Amino acid sequence: MDNHDATCALTVDTLAIVGVGLIGGSFALALKQAGVCRQVFGVGRRVQVLDEALRLGIIDRAVSLKEAAAQADLIMIAAPVGAFADIFSAMKPHLSSHAIITDGGSTKGNVVAAARACLGEKVGQFVPAHPIAGSHESGPAAAVADLYRDKHLIVCPLPENSSKAVQGVRAAWQACGAKVLTLGIEQHDEVVAAISHLPHWLASLYMAHIAQSANAAVELEIAGAGFRDFTRIAQGSEEMWRDIFLANRRAMLSQIDQLQGWLDQARKALDSEDGAWIESMLTRGAEVRRDWGQGRYQVEPGDE
Amino acid sequence: MDNHDATCALTVDTLAIVGVGLIGGSFALALKQAGVCRQVFGVGRRVQVLDEALRLGIIDRAVSLKEAAAQADLIMIAAPVGAFADIFSAMKPHLSSHAIITDGGSTKGNVVAAARACLGEKVGQFVPAHPIAGSHESGPAAAVADLYRDKHLIVCPLPENSSKAVQGVRAAWQACGAKVLTLGIEQHDEVVAAISHLPHWLASLYMAHIAQSANAAVELEIAGAGFRDFTRIAQGSEEMWRDIFLANRRAMLSQIDQLQGWLDQARKALDSEDGAWIESMLTRGAEVRRDWGQGRYQVEPGDE
Repeated sequence: MDNHDATCALTVDTLAIVGVGLIGGSFALALKQAGVCRQVFGVGRRVQVLDEALRLGIIDRAVSLKEAAAQADLIMIAAPVGAFADIFSAMKPHLSSHAIITDGGSTKGNVVAAARACLGEKVGQFVPAHPIAGSHESGPAAAVADLYRDKHLIVCPLPENSSKAVQGVRAAWQACGAKVLTLGIEQHDEVVAAISHLPHWLASLYMAHIAQSANAAVELEIAGAGFRDFTRIAQGSEEMWRDIFLANRRAMLSQIDQLQGWLDQARKALDSEDGAWIESMLTRGAEVRRDWGQGRYQVEPGDE
Repeated sequence: MDNHDATCALTVDTLAIVGVGLIGGSFALALKQAGVCRQVFGVGRRVQVLDEALRLGIIDRAVSLKEAAAQADLIMIAAPVGAFADIFSAMKPHLSSHAIITDGGSTKGNVVAAARACLGEKVGQFVPAHPIAGSHESGPAAAVADLYRDKHLIVCPLPENSSKAVQGVRAAWQACGAKVLTLGIEQHDEVVAAISHLPHWLASLYMAHIAQSANAAVELEIAGAGFRDFTRIAQGSEEMWRDIFLANRRAMLSQIDQLQGWLDQARKALDSEDGAWIESMLTRGAEVRRDWGQGRYQVEPGDE
């Protein structure tokens, strides 16, 4: 399936976004711009934020979770992953049988556990997804129609999903311009732990180490471009990253333990002046990183 | 001492650079441009490279180590740190009593050990230095007069150095436009291990871990800007970094063990879902990194 066919196939009368900020708002704007939905409902806790989303044309009407569940054809949950259980529970009694739910949560194991617990026999209507896109900004004003254009979207279908539900969710994200990849729930959490959460963990622990160094003043004085790039991600929101690490705890512990194997071997090699081991380790990583920098690992939209 | 006074005070009749590539060549071009030296001798192992340095006007004459030792007033060694012992040994019998030697080596403990062993009673003529500057390119063609302008230069005076020797070396680097900081030998090696070598170690081990991941293909496919910046340094020359890690082994092991304390505590906190510890660690590093990004840790030339 390529983007064009998918977009043509999709029609949504009523889209509901739960959370009208960057992630949900951009999804709504993209589907509006693609001309595949007639109206957008917005659900949120704060009246001012809903008013802003209305004023910006992101949503056409502010509704309750109950109304969204009963009336929307496609529901996209863009809330902190810790809030999913309450959202599912509030929607379940009212959820129309034809509605499809997707989400933008950055971890999937915990979200799916909440869906199974709270949606019960309706869990097949939920097709979990994770867009690999973001911004330093947040809120409705940060939402843009092209946030997901040419970005990856990971879809993690459940055994309970109908193929129609999965195709509908894929088509919606493709209508946003995203490149859709399919992964299992566990594999998704391992992959994002490896490529996104573990670097943040390491950069942050390294910065905590430097921050308390006896030589911190002179170290930070002479620190240059290598330090700048290596530690840039450590500036991210403390609260957000604390929640991500806790939400993806199991996969993170596995990644941490795998990396620790490398750290232990490397320390031993350095202690025993094993230059051959060190060079071989450096070469292994450098070659893959250089290939990646040359775009060797990019696939075209639709490839899987 | 500020840059202006220092530059005016310095006159060098004959400068010799041992190694006529990026580091040595840029030093020569900077002192020529500052008008503080009459002629530049170049020492090197390869005739083609010396010819190139002559043709580019970096050096005025190619000479032997013996001639450089006997005739130069200031000698700058810009060779791999593993070659310093042979260079010192070859120069020692011919070294004129008024000559001052400095260097551009990125580790200092091992260079000073070589100087003590090979220069013997003449070790006081060697004032160790480390310019925090570089380029992806190398060789005489990469040399530029402003490589050191506004960059840090760490000088690590020996107890045996006369104040005249130290002032001469400081003045020479200041004539290149560098901001001179003074550190002890051990402190220098700890500081560069912390701020430069440890990030390279971590980025490389992380890349080696990803390179052998069962999910490597999809991980590299979805990797984005955070991954890109965190791993950029892991592309560096394997041979050069192997040698740096081995040359600075003692300080590196100390840094690795200090960081391991953080890694162990963090794993324990994550395993026990101690969100408060994780948030506090993240905050500690993020605040220092944000301040650093705002330039809070930059000092003016001459400050120490």
